[in-house]
Amino acid sequence: MGLDDVRYFDQPEREPAEPGRFVSIEALEPVLNLAAGLTSRPLVGSNLLGSFVRYEPDSVAPLHSHVEEQLFVVLEGEIELELSGERRMMKPGDAALIPAWVPHSARSFSRGAYQLDVFSPPRQAMLDLIAAHDLNA
Amino acid sequence: MGLDDVRYFDQPEREPAEPGRFVSIEALEPVLNLAAGLTSRPLVGSNLLGSFVRYEPDSVAPLHSHVEEQLFVVLEGEIELELSGERRMMKPGDAALIPAWVPHSARSFSRGAYQLDVFSPPRQAMLDLIAAHDLNA
Repeated sequence: MGLDDVRYFDQPEREPAEPGRFVSIEALEPVLNLAAGLTSRPLVGSNLLGSFVRYEPDSVAPLHSHVEEQLFVVLEGEIELELSGERRMMKPGDAALIPAWVPHSARSFSRGAYQLDVFSPPRQAMLDLIAAHDLNA
Repeated sequence: MGLDDVRYFDQPEREPAEPGRFVSIEALEPVLNLAAGLTSRPLVGSNLLGSFVRYEPDSVAPLHSHVEEQLFVVLEGEIELELSGERRMMKPGDAALIPAWVPHSARSFSRGAYQLDVFSPPRQAMLDLIAAHDLNA
């Protein structure tokens, strides 16, 4: 197969079941408190869930793991990520791929930080947080 | 269910099947040419595929659609996104959720731009591009 044989922008069309959605991230609701100093604005899809996470200075996401695969992308500031037992300082331009059940934790320092997580499938614990938030709103 | 009943950071642990992966985005290989002035650095997972897309000035991703769900996040610059027939100028802080088969196109202007797509499941046409690149490397 040659490179010219892949039709990246030339696929057959089907009728979509739902429309696309433009999003202003700062306007996403609800805003979830994940831990002290740690808030998430989730964007919930069918196969994936985006979580835009803001870290106040010196905030910690404690060590945890989950069945959902996770893409971790730093957007602003510096975050120390512990992943599979290794700790690295991450900044914009850095990312991580976190397979199912791989333990990870993250922390910010004096500047605070901002990052995107994308979970696939959508992280059930976050869907539960959204449901609990709506019940208690 | 109350908010305190959701254990976001307190989940049972399982043995992971593979380790986590730290990534420097600019070091990702291969770099795929998607269209004139449009390159992608893909990060391939099991359930999702991240694609970090760099737009030279005045570059176009033509109108297309695909079965894979897509999260579109602007990282730098300005991109005009056409989605479900509506066109909007997008900048950092803006995102879009693109369900299966929703037609979309994107273009940059004089500054160029940079954005992240996350596909779930991994976009087959991009896996094909990677395979073709490796065969022809």
